[in-house]
Amino acid sequence: MNKLKILNDPIYGFITIPNSLIFDLIQHKYFQRLRRITQMGLSYLVYPGAHHTRFHHAIGCVHLMQKTVNVLRFKGVSISKEEETGLYAAILLHDIGHGPFSHAMEHSIVNGVSHERLSLLFMERLNDEFNGSLTLAIEIFKGEYPRKFMCQLISGQFDMDRADYLKRDSFYTGVAEGNINSERLITMLNVVDDELVVEEKGIYSVEKFIIARRFMYWQVYLHKTGLAAEQLLIRTLQRAKELQHKGHKLEASKPLMYFLQNKITLANFNDDTLNIFAALDDFDIISAMKHWQHDTDFVLSHLSTMIINRNLLTIKIKNKPIKNEDLDLHIDSLMRTYGISKTEAQYFVFKGSISNQAYQHNHKGINILHKSGKIEDIVKACDQLNLKALSKAVTKYYICYPKLKS
Amino acid sequence: MNKLKILNDPIYGFITIPNSLIFDLIQHKYFQRLRRITQMGLSYLVYPGAHHTRFHHAIGCVHLMQKTVNVLRFKGVSISKEEETGLYAAILLHDIGHGPFSHAMEHSIVNGVSHERLSLLFMERLNDEFNGSLTLAIEIFKGEYPRKFMCQLISGQFDMDRADYLKRDSFYTGVAEGNINSERLITMLNVVDDELVVEEKGIYSVEKFIIARRFMYWQVYLHKTGLAAEQLLIRTLQRAKELQHKGHKLEASKPLMYFLQNKITLANFNDDTLNIFAALDDFDIISAMKHWQHDTDFVLSHLSTMIINRNLLTIKIKNKPIKNEDLDLHIDSLMRTYGISKTEAQYFVFKGSISNQAYQHNHKGINILHKSGKIEDIVKACDQLNLKALSKAVTKYYICYPKLKS
Amino acid sequence: MNKLKILNDPIYGFITIPNSLIFDLIQHKYFQRLRRITQMGLSYLVYPGAHHTRFHHAIGCVHLMQKTVNVLRFKGVSISKEEETGLYAAILLHDIGHGPFSHAMEHSIVNGVSHERLSLLFMERLNDEFNGSLTLAIEIFKGEYPRKFMCQLISGQFDMDRADYLKRDSFYTGVAEGNINSERLITMLNVVDDELVVEEKGIYSVEKFIIARRFMYWQVYLHKTGLAAEQLLIRTLQRAKELQHKGHKLEASKPLMYFLQNKITLANFNDDTLNIFAALDDFDIISAMKHWQHDTDFVLSHLSTMIINRNLLTIKIKNKPIKNEDLDLHIDSLMRTYGISKTEAQYFVFKGSISNQAYQHNHKGINILHKSGKIEDIVKACDQLNLKALSKAVTKYYICYPKLKS
Amino acid sequence: MNKLKILNDPIYGFITIPNSLIFDLIQHKYFQRLRRITQMGLSYLVYPGAHHTRFHHAIGCVHLMQKTVNVLRFKGVSISKEEETGLYAAILLHDIGHGPFSHAMEHSIVNGVSHERLSLLFMERLNDEFNGSLTLAIEIFKGEYPRKFMCQLISGQFDMDRADYLKRDSFYTGVAEGNINSERLITMLNVVDDELVVEEKGIYSVEKFIIARRFMYWQVYLHKTGLAAEQLLIRTLQRAKELQHKGHKLEASKPLMYFLQNKITLANFNDDTLNIFAALDDFDIISAMKHWQHDTDFVLSHLSTMIINRNLLTIKIKNKPIKNEDLDLHIDSLMRTYGISKTEAQYFVFKGSISNQAYQHNHKGINILHKSGKIEDIVKACDQLNLKALSKAVTKYYICYPKLKS
Repeated sequence: MNKLKILNDPIYGFITIPNSLIFDLIQHKYFQRLRRITQMGLSYLVYPGAHHTRFHHAIGCVHLMQKTVNVLRFKGVSISKEEETGLYAAILLHDIGHGPFSHAMEHSIVNGVSHERLSLLFMERLNDEFNGSLTLAIEIFKGEYPRKFMCQLISGQFDMDRADYLKRDSFYTGVAEGNINSERLITMLNVVDDELVVEEKGIYSVEKFIIARRFMYWQVYLHKTGLAAEQLLIRTLQRAKELQHKGHKLEASKPLMYFLQNKITLANFNDDTLNIFAALDDFDIISAMKHWQHDTDFVLSHLSTMIINRNLLTIKIKNKPIKNEDLDLHIDSLMRTYGISKTEAQYFVFKGSISNQAYQHNHKGINILHKSGKIEDIVKACDQLNLKALSKAVTKYYICYPKLKS
Repeated sequence: MNKLKILNDPIYGFITIPNSLIFDLIQHKYFQRLRRITQMGLSYLVYPGAHHTRFHHAIGCVHLMQKTVNVLRFKGVSISKEEETGLYAAILLHDIGHGPFSHAMEHSIVNGVSHERLSLLFMERLNDEFNGSLTLAIEIFKGEYPRKFMCQLISGQFDMDRADYLKRDSFYTGVAEGNINSERLITMLNVVDDELVVEEKGIYSVEKFIIARRFMYWQVYLHKTGLAAEQLLIRTLQRAKELQHKGHKLEASKPLMYFLQNKITLANFNDDTLNIFAALDDFDIISAMKHWQHDTDFVLSHLSTMIINRNLLTIKIKNKPIKNEDLDLHIDSLMRTYGISKTEAQYFVFKGSISNQAYQHNHKGINILHKSGKIEDIVKACDQLNLKALSKAVTKYYICYPKLKS
Repeated sequence: MNKLKILNDPIYGFITIPNSLIFDLIQHKYFQRLRRITQMGLSYLVYPGAHHTRFHHAIGCVHLMQKTVNVLRFKGVSISKEEETGLYAAILLHDIGHGPFSHAMEHSIVNGVSHERLSLLFMERLNDEFNGSLTLAIEIFKGEYPRKFMCQLISGQFDMDRADYLKRDSFYTGVAEGNINSERLITMLNVVDDELVVEEKGIYSVEKFIIARRFMYWQVYLHKTGLAAEQLLIRTLQRAKELQHKGHKLEASKPLMYFLQNKITLANFNDDTLNIFAALDDFDIISAMKHWQHDTDFVLSHLSTMIINRNLLTIKIKNKPIKNEDLDLHIDSLMRTYGISKTEAQYFVFKGSISNQAYQHNHKGINILHKSGKIEDIVKACDQLNLKALSKAVTKYYICYPKLKS
Repeated sequence: MNKLKILNDPIYGFITIPNSLIFDLIQHKYFQRLRRITQMGLSYLVYPGAHHTRFHHAIGCVHLMQKTVNVLRFKGVSISKEEETGLYAAILLHDIGHGPFSHAMEHSIVNGVSHERLSLLFMERLNDEFNGSLTLAIEIFKGEYPRKFMCQLISGQFDMDRADYLKRDSFYTGVAEGNINSERLITMLNVVDDELVVEEKGIYSVEKFIIARRFMYWQVYLHKTGLAAEQLLIRTLQRAKELQHKGHKLEASKPLMYFLQNKITLANFNDDTLNIFAALDDFDIISAMKHWQHDTDFVLSHLSTMIINRNLLTIKIKNKPIKNEDLDLHIDSLMRTYGISKTEAQYFVFKGSISNQAYQHNHKGINILHKSGKIEDIVKACDQLNLKALSKAVTKYYICYPKLKS
């Protein structure tokens, strides 16, 4: 490649593709598929700007990784040409295993197979195809590369994944409070004994990053309307699977049908499964629901229609667990109104909980490098902001039920 | 509605929904459908950020219209409450008739029915449903309302449609050159004898708007890779229609199948057709092509795969018409390589032209209001920038053909 | 005024001047003087973009106040035409009493007269000139107007002053972490029993505001280099005053000379003093120091030259108080090197402390309005972020001394 | 220097100082002086955000030059380490010869000595001080370095000076229309036969740059109110000089007094003059006018007061030359009202012309590199936008006179 391959990016201005391996990986159909998977699932039902894709996010991560490599080298950290490419490939592919509406899928279709595990399967397959040039990237991705900081840049409390997605999601939703200054944080990274550290002057920026992340969780990722939509989606797919197993004939694309019909676990996830999974994206799910609006099953058709027309369930968030009596009230009302069974009504009336831990204060914490050379966890290094409080998970409870016309 | 209904918008910050009619129209499934139609068709294959939808654009237009109403009233232009709502409804719904990949569809499926005509059909249907509250909006939309400036704000050389889409498309593509200062331009609008004018001090801003629009055309809307993608899409749908008519069984959603099977014209576009059309969006098209990748027809499967995997045709842009000999060379080569017929090869090798006229210097031009009270067309009012030159259409020619592996 | 008076603002796009009283106040020479007083004192020595003025800030506050009035009226809060103008005038003039390099002055020249007190003097003078049309504004400014929320919008924990300056200072310094979403916060304001509240959904935005403010304090307002510059400035003016009193003849503009020669307190701050103060701005101070570089006094000339050529003192920040022995070491060294007295050396070697309290948890706290109607302080309303910790002041200690060439 | 020296910049985010020579030049008092010279003179009287300095602009230019060096090297253009530093030093210092309110000075005080000539004098002086390390930079600055593209990057139709100032002035004034995408344009630069070219795909961006520049001229640099202010300033200084020569005693700082008293030309501009010039900045001029407000001379005191209190002359812009009769009318009226002589009145009533040529179509034009390898001037390469029209200078005429109270 003798051309300066450049992509426009509304956030960073321009993104340069660093070398031909990365270029070829991007061209691969496994990666192109990410163009059809939105980064934030159904969040666009709340934030109409949030239609950005995992494709764009992954490339944004590569951009930030290039900045990081430059900064670290400038500071005297040696990073070989092979390691550099390994870092780019690992971050480019870190999310390649995501299915459509990722979390909804994990709770309905590929139960028990995490997207990280799937990413690894994809990377191994691609490694065969690219004659072993991803071996180092895989080692980094698995966290097994001896130089720990490289693994931490792929997956840690401040990794390039978070550095990009917080900024990108903030940008596309228009929720400016989540905007973090990724490029500034990157200039403050350093490496001591092959561990990633943030220089002392970056303490406030790290705090800001933790607070912004927490903000995005409560305000965006756990937004109650988005939550209601996601729960509807999970239930729609569960109902479809159930009906399919009962012999009810459903419309669905071949790849989706495969996952509705078969119980897929990590154990039976073979090469064929991977190829079928690689054919699955948001379009299969939304298209199926568009069909299912007209299905004869009351539950499936109503659930699908609610999502397609954005006529979602009412959702209430509480600080205390929801009582069963509250549920029963709505269930009874629904059974009476529509003449449906309790089991059917429970698809529309349910409870659950959400929880948010802004900072995981553990062995993989963010380390601050003091001018004295001392290294300590941000929780200790920070004088005023009580980060310990932020290390505690906060749980909230929700109940969903339909708006009944009076 | 007694709540301040606010939507986050990455561009304007916040958008307020002005009243309950507009709110209810947005909630309607006809309008929610626009969430599934991208504003820029396949342009995201070139600009990965460009996944914004017609839904978002339409709401952005309402935002700008609110600004305009405020500015004009401030300047003493009387606009009644009914007219205000009419303006909001008309601009909200101006694009509701768009199908998926609008231009591609017009050249393949609903041949000969413009999206403006379809918007009108939708508006009339909604008017029935909303008990006549859209009558004034329809009059404005049709350009028949006696106060001309209202019609010009919906459709003119500087209307709220353009004011939003240029800014929005520039934002999401990351092509900063197309960014126009819509809000500044709006502050310079005024009305004389019920005609829209721009105050003299806005001359340079209008020029800038015209230049930015031209820039976006060449750089984005007519980007050669986007053009190649769109042509592939048109050909894919034409091939599908052709095969369907020949009795070749195709996978497709019901609404799409309807348009593949039937020859729809304005004459036979009845209420049922409208409902089927309303069920059609990007998801039907992309999902169909995902199926068609595996079709037995060489042409259909290859065309579909090229789009899905973004493995597009080579395209060359020339200032002079393409000669047939140039086409034949590529056609012959393709016939030999794949053993296909000339007709089949012509799906992959073809020529065409594109043209761009930055400013239509005619009866609907942009009028400048001089301090003296004199009104003249921007072309005359502008002293230096030769807008007359920009009023001439420029035509370029292109040829597309596949990359053959050597 | 029958014209839409609009100012360009890099932050808000456009600022509209709401009425002719505000327009006339802006035109007044007392207000025009604020064009010559930078908002952030000598911070531009650290952040080269930070040359914005108190003039611009004050007008930005009026812009945000207009947004607030609109939002509150939309929510049914009645605000009369007179109250509206009172709010605009009060916020426009809230900082008019600031002298050049405000804090430096308070510690050197007008010792003991706060800028708030001076703002009030200016407002009263202007009220005479404008025939009493500022009476309501003055009542609001003094916190004596019965409708408390109006006073809180001028001076409170989230007032229009902070809403503008945090955003503006963040913008001009380029320190994105301090950027707050003022306009979003404003949409969440409401009034209950004439007290300002933030609606429940705004909790995270308020937290973000508090954190951003804290960030700006440590990173920008208390930046160590800025601190060293400010201390040099204070000492320069103190030395000048001292020399003047000793009969050493100094160059200085008339207004500056007046304040060097006379001991001004609130008691003797009469109408003439006000007029002389109104003639004083950054230009008097910087110009004087440019002269003083060539003064025969070792201390004055060196201090002045250090600021003018940005050749500042070394400054170290510590978590514990600085010991006198550390000071003495540097003082001795300086005395030996330059053959100066201890008193002289102490102008260049000194210690001090800075402290930052992100949130004042007291009677003027930020109140959250829950959906249930309950009102509670943000510290209690916030579940996870330990705002109590942020209510404690954190103190740091610094030592300054010159870089001696080895 | 083993530290990553980074400056915050509101426009580019961060600016890295490339090496220790550049760092030391920035620290030098000659360069620090640029902190006290605003980039846009008195434009802040029209655009209150425009207080940015020549210091900041010069550093911004270095930032863009670093981008350019990277891009060109990526494309295979060889640039040695010495040449790289030469480019940085040359662009850093290209404006170091600017005096306060540059153009006003050239027309009043240092008549006939251009700032480019003064920059060269400064650079030669600094070259002595830095032991010849600026020799290459000076050669580039003078346009004498054999590799022409380096000279073109310092001074040409698209040089780093323009690339920064258009963007920066647009940013700080808030006039978004002038915003150019400097970084995009830079990615399209290339070098053929040591001449700078823009690659074909950059045609529209170059057009956009030319149009934006033209826009900024009419809207900002030649804004009528800014023009009136600048003319007042020129006349104030001319009057001061005149009075000084007549023996009227004036207050002024030593450096300003030197230039008021002596007739400085290039011939007598020696080392001492340079040092005195280096002590002159905006603060000397504004401070002098603050004194002069109280001068006994009617003309000087009124002119000064008008600027200080922003109570400017009325200015009218016309397409045709102003007639002497129109002037006389205002002059007579002024003479009668204030009982002043015609000569005195002419300080307040005068005419002039302004002219703007968006593109200089000559030997130093912008060359487009076509894919075919052909190189042609943008005027020819551009198909539609009539750049030839933009190459013609447009002249407008103005008249200034005071608002007389009726």
